[in-house]
Amino acid sequence: MKFVSIIIGSKSDYEIANECSKILSNFDVPFELIISSAHRSPERTHEYVKDASERGAQIFICMAGMAAHLAGAVAAMTTKPVIGVPMPGSAIDGIDALYSTVQMPGGIPVATVAIGKAGAKNAAYLALQILALNNESIASKLADDRAKQSEALIEDSKKIEVLIKEKA
Amino acid sequence: MKFVSIIIGSKSDYEIANECSKILSNFDVPFELIISSAHRSPERTHEYVKDASERGAQIFICMAGMAAHLAGAVAAMTTKPVIGVPMPGSAIDGIDALYSTVQMPGGIPVATVAIGKAGAKNAAYLALQILALNNESIASKLADDRAKQSEALIEDSKKIEVLIKEKA
Amino acid sequence: MKFVSIIIGSKSDYEIANECSKILSNFDVPFELIISSAHRSPERTHEYVKDASERGAQIFICMAGMAAHLAGAVAAMTTKPVIGVPMPGSAIDGIDALYSTVQMPGGIPVATVAIGKAGAKNAAYLALQILALNNESIASKLADDRAKQSEALIEDSKKIEVLIKEKA
Amino acid sequence: MKFVSIIIGSKSDYEIANECSKILSNFDVPFELIISSAHRSPERTHEYVKDASERGAQIFICMAGMAAHLAGAVAAMTTKPVIGVPMPGSAIDGIDALYSTVQMPGGIPVATVAIGKAGAKNAAYLALQILALNNESIASKLADDRAKQSEALIEDSKKIEVLIKEKA
Amino acid sequence: MKFVSIIIGSKSDYEIANECSKILSNFDVPFELIISSAHRSPERTHEYVKDASERGAQIFICMAGMAAHLAGAVAAMTTKPVIGVPMPGSAIDGIDALYSTVQMPGGIPVATVAIGKAGAKNAAYLALQILALNNESIASKLADDRAKQSEALIEDSKKIEVLIKEKA
Amino acid sequence: MKFVSIIIGSKSDYEIANECSKILSNFDVPFELIISSAHRSPERTHEYVKDASERGAQIFICMAGMAAHLAGAVAAMTTKPVIGVPMPGSAIDGIDALYSTVQMPGGIPVATVAIGKAGAKNAAYLALQILALNNESIASKLADDRAKQSEALIEDSKKIEVLIKEKA
Amino acid sequence: MKFVSIIIGSKSDYEIANECSKILSNFDVPFELIISSAHRSPERTHEYVKDASERGAQIFICMAGMAAHLAGAVAAMTTKPVIGVPMPGSAIDGIDALYSTVQMPGGIPVATVAIGKAGAKNAAYLALQILALNNESIASKLADDRAKQSEALIEDSKKIEVLIKEKA
Amino acid sequence: MKFVSIIIGSKSDYEIANECSKILSNFDVPFELIISSAHRSPERTHEYVKDASERGAQIFICMAGMAAHLAGAVAAMTTKPVIGVPMPGSAIDGIDALYSTVQMPGGIPVATVAIGKAGAKNAAYLALQILALNNESIASKLADDRAKQSEALIEDSKKIEVLIKEKA
Repeated sequence: MKFVSIIIGSKSDYEIANECSKILSNFDVPFELIISSAHRSPERTHEYVKDASERGAQIFICMAGMAAHLAGAVAAMTTKPVIGVPMPGSAIDGIDALYSTVQMPGGIPVATVAIGKAGAKNAAYLALQILALNNESIASKLADDRAKQSEALIEDSKKIEVLIKEKA
Repeated sequence: MKFVSIIIGSKSDYEIANECSKILSNFDVPFELIISSAHRSPERTHEYVKDASERGAQIFICMAGMAAHLAGAVAAMTTKPVIGVPMPGSAIDGIDALYSTVQMPGGIPVATVAIGKAGAKNAAYLALQILALNNESIASKLADDRAKQSEALIEDSKKIEVLIKEKA
Repeated sequence: MKFVSIIIGSKSDYEIANECSKILSNFDVPFELIISSAHRSPERTHEYVKDASERGAQIFICMAGMAAHLAGAVAAMTTKPVIGVPMPGSAIDGIDALYSTVQMPGGIPVATVAIGKAGAKNAAYLALQILALNNESIASKLADDRAKQSEALIEDSKKIEVLIKEKA
Repeated sequence: MKFVSIIIGSKSDYEIANECSKILSNFDVPFELIISSAHRSPERTHEYVKDASERGAQIFICMAGMAAHLAGAVAAMTTKPVIGVPMPGSAIDGIDALYSTVQMPGGIPVATVAIGKAGAKNAAYLALQILALNNESIASKLADDRAKQSEALIEDSKKIEVLIKEKA
Repeated sequence: MKFVSIIIGSKSDYEIANECSKILSNFDVPFELIISSAHRSPERTHEYVKDASERGAQIFICMAGMAAHLAGAVAAMTTKPVIGVPMPGSAIDGIDALYSTVQMPGGIPVATVAIGKAGAKNAAYLALQILALNNESIASKLADDRAKQSEALIEDSKKIEVLIKEKA
Repeated sequence: MKFVSIIIGSKSDYEIANECSKILSNFDVPFELIISSAHRSPERTHEYVKDASERGAQIFICMAGMAAHLAGAVAAMTTKPVIGVPMPGSAIDGIDALYSTVQMPGGIPVATVAIGKAGAKNAAYLALQILALNNESIASKLADDRAKQSEALIEDSKKIEVLIKEKA
Repeated sequence: MKFVSIIIGSKSDYEIANECSKILSNFDVPFELIISSAHRSPERTHEYVKDASERGAQIFICMAGMAAHLAGAVAAMTTKPVIGVPMPGSAIDGIDALYSTVQMPGGIPVATVAIGKAGAKNAAYLALQILALNNESIASKLADDRAKQSEALIEDSKKIEVLIKEKA
Repeated sequence: MKFVSIIIGSKSDYEIANECSKILSNFDVPFELIISSAHRSPERTHEYVKDASERGAQIFICMAGMAAHLAGAVAAMTTKPVIGVPMPGSAIDGIDALYSTVQMPGGIPVATVAIGKAGAKNAAYLALQILALNNESIASKLADDRAKQSEALIEDSKKIEVLIKEKA
């Protein structure tokens, strides 16, 4: 049973994590979402990654803020792809989390996406793109979704063009 | 014929790109490396991505500096996974390239790795991890490689422990 | 029919874009405002720029946030002047958009103005200054407008000087 | 007699300024290059801008480092387009000059380009793009130049592809 | 008639400027406060500085945000001490104003103080310290004020110590 | 047998680590120095920390660069004090390492010192200060050392005062 | 009578300081909390540190914002361990306080923790970890506390897993 | 006997300090230059400032790097004007020193100038401008010096204009 594993560093990350899991749900991709911290529960994190890998986790999505070690810690324990979402909320507004997530040493990659909500969405899309390499159904849904994004944008544009004409 | 496509934004990026292609070679993963710029040759980039996708490109690795749009431009044209390596060398030392690569809007992800050489290596490893999801041979080589990294580090450690004892 | 083309990356940019289009309206300079994204609708952007150029677009004003590739993507498709407005709103408060807009490689310039509202205004003024090089009427209105800015400031100053005297 | 005016803040900026003037020369666009500082020679700057405007200066290109006020000071004295090139060389590597140049208040725009050499080149290209709006010859040369940039990049790419095949 | 001249770049700076002028009032030091901008009213600024110098201005305090050129522009026109207060409020939160104010080239100093309200206060104190070099009365009041600051802090401390004891 | 444990993330950190171990040697405080990485050898790190704690490690000093997780990873495994030294050498010059080390979540502290060489020295001094709380001999040597630092500085000052007088 | 001394730079820091003192109270570790500033009451700070050291202060925790010299000033006066908490609240959001606290010169360490509330908590935990080196009771409570943090996190995780199942 | 006091934090600052003292010498203004550190010799700094003030020090110029507390520490001990020069040389290139120097709390100002060499020069010029308020001779020399700076720049400009004509 293949699935995507989402790990968040604290319950305060849950709202943003939802942006990620909703997209996976929309694509009918099974996922797990747990809270586990690189610092507060390192052994739980360790055991979970081993266990989840054996149970079929294909990709790990890790969301954490501040000195965000979660993605790196998971990447150190598996050779499955690990996606890191730097979370905002610290005094430094997530730049600390970005640097802590993306600047991994050679050999242990973390696929880092944008800070916060946009990153949470993109973590889902990146996971889908990876799974789509061997799943025609996801690949085809992704192509549709991309087209819809473009169409929605064109709709928005038309509304604004009307608005401007009305003003003139 | 499946392969990894590496695109660099200018010939000055070639030396660092080599850090990436060497690793793919070591894992016997076929790759292409071309120079194409989001800004200087946008249509070439566009056509190449379409063509390469049809010929079997599984993953795109894009390396560019400054206002590094290459990875984002490629991500906008394909739903294959795109890995971005921010290149140093500007006055702002690659932070411009990092922000330009990682801060993608929701829906169009770029899997961003570290700035420069470490990132070039990790782009290769991340590509291998993605391919390994459906390739037992690569998966097994990755596990070996990880073990070797750890052993090399232990060897280094032993040499230094000897050095320290000799001094004492 | 000559005009200024304003492209915004998403509908959330519309309010700030209004600061720009209002000024063009005040100077009776025709403009178009559409939503098109370098990432979500790259082909629409491409076709629009070609089409608008043929229809008489003299200057493109592009407003986008985060990894703001819009201005650079447009600049790559035309040799008309392209003005970039970095938009705030990301975790990094628009510094990501600033770097993504201004740090263009040699050969493909983007005329970058301030982040956000001040930049939206200045994009309009810069476009007017460019058009004024061959349009006496705009040139003369710009000179008047500059004088009025100065006078308004002097009025503000007088009010405050009165305020201070009253307190003393 | 129409021309482009280049003002640099100190003689140490001359080498980078050359990157700009060479391109104008290649396009047979007349230019003047003087040293004048917003801080060390404010009245000279003031008089020069008035005088040059009357003599036919169409565009001002200003290059300065640190608290780079030159472009802003010139923009305050003219409604001709002013292009600002932030110069590196300070302890803060040109970020001070970038912020000092780009963050102009609404009403007084400076068209800011990249820090240093790439910016010096792009200042020239931006000036050419502005002049090309009313000069077919420059417009046509710009289109040729753009095509050549793209071809040069393709040549570089071919060389590297050969290199890689030889290694394999 | 000797006085301190306070120049603010826009009326929105008035509230923070009040923190400065209140302190000068408390020390019975005469001051003028006007709005004048380096960009929106450069000639007014120029003429005011000349005129105020002749009328007895000893020190200029300049408060401006964004590409804050006001202090540098004034410093370029006088050899009287110029104090610069970088104002917050931009997307970059006043770091743009700080760099634009403090990074002056050798020969034209601006005495820069903290961003915003603390800086506005310190501009007043710095001006008082300078005037005190030749004014025993101000010098003596400054010493008293310093002692009061320390006493107020000790009072605050006592209240908190009581609070803690009550809790225990 | 009580000792200080120094862990460095890679052999390239050895030279700077020497600045730390030399000081411990001078104070006759036993130490161990090993290479172990949070990412390349997470299990070795884990086992070493458990083992060293049992053998008498009182304090862990961790030195790592980039996304520097070493100190945080060690802090997650022990309740002994952990000192983190952010290492320079990345494109971002150690700010990535600083943020990754200092911005730990509440509950799992890392005592962070300056980036690079100064930090390596201060890690040793901080360890000595902690040990001195229960070791009169170290406490007394620290007081002597502090006095010597001050004296050395006074000697330097005298030499420069002589130099200046000779010039005059 | 051994205790921990907490010094805050101004009464506005008291709320965050409470996060620190609450934890010490929970562990039954005696503490003092005073307000004293490196700048507004340098002599009070000096005398307090001497006096508190003699009365049994083992560790100093210093909390200050902006150009946060408090921890460094205390570290210069004692060889007891000094923990610095950079406080947010300035225009630069505490990065000024972080740099002012952590970048101490070799020989005079400050054990720096995270900016703001997380740092205030970690200052307490770090102090407890130091005291625990010679206090079995604190050591044992710290181990319990760590386990409880981990359990609380697992409880949070379970609630979210239930939430997700209910939605599905 | 009135004089300017220059204090540097370490002997490595001497070369840059020379840029400051040379200018004071050229204006025949007496100065003292000593090494004293806020951290390594706080009591020496304290006593020196008291003593120098009594002996006639009018202005203190303080140069220090990293967590640069020197200027702030001196400002806390005197109500004479204190000028701070942030020194480069740390991993963070002097931004740490800039923030540590300029972000002083309300009531205790430090007149901060640019990082490094330009700042060292401007510290001297600022001191001269302050002294010139009550010294006609210095005031007149400052006016001459300013004129010479402007003339030197015009000479540089002429040489470059000749150079450009020769090339054409």
